[in-house]
Amino acid sequence: MLHIPSLYIHELEGKGKAVFTAEALDPESLIETCPVIILSKEDLQKIHQTRLHDYYFLWGEDLQSAAIALGYGSLYNHAEKPNAYFQMDFENERIDIISKTAIEAGEEICINYVEENNRGVKLWFDIKNT
Amino acid sequence: MLHIPSLYIHELEGKGKAVFTAEALDPESLIETCPVIILSKEDLQKIHQTRLHDYYFLWGEDLQSAAIALGYGSLYNHAEKPNAYFQMDFENERIDIISKTAIEAGEEICINYVEENNRGVKLWFDIKNT
Repeated sequence: MLHIPSLYIHELEGKGKAVFTAEALDPESLIETCPVIILSKEDLQKIHQTRLHDYYFLWGEDLQSAAIALGYGSLYNHAEKPNAYFQMDFENERIDIISKTAIEAGEEICINYVEENNRGVKLWFDIKNT
Repeated sequence: MLHIPSLYIHELEGKGKAVFTAEALDPESLIETCPVIILSKEDLQKIHQTRLHDYYFLWGEDLQSAAIALGYGSLYNHAEKPNAYFQMDFENERIDIISKTAIEAGEEICINYVEENNRGVKLWFDIKNT
């Protein structure tokens, strides 16, 4: 499974693209398995100065490299109290998106970019908050 | 529809990740609609020196900017005689992947990165061939 069949993308005024589910989800449901493009520490320095700054995840046990999430992993918006979280699988080079709470049909799916249990962070957000 | 339900990703020895269909497809079937992250001309110069070099599409009427294809758009391998092609929609910021020939169940879906009718090219390949 790449992702649940009910996933869809919708453009939100002022917020850009966002990810939604057309069907209700139980907590701890696997929403999506995102393949990633992994970038070295040196590559990270370069993309950090580009628009990709807003998209990449820090990657690796030491968080020294970066990953661009494919599938729809780059499109989940940030929420303080998200209804989903992400889990990095360094060995299999993927990021799983999993529901944290029950999610209603038609609801946007959000993650918290800096939450501890994500095992990893999206760098630009980390910088903004320190 | 984000993509046909029969799409799956499989790792090929020596070729890396590749995109397959589990069901047969007719010619001219819409396989996937890929959202994109658009990068400016300046950003393109920077990512050109990174591993993303192998992934981005040239973008815009003048092909001066770049696009990173989300969904599985970055994972289709190149073939001289491909069974699919891509069509860029600059206005709606998406790249559609469409079957060119009939495709069998279990067959890899490939595109030609530099073909004329793609309306656009993947830059690294263009450079290798000129």
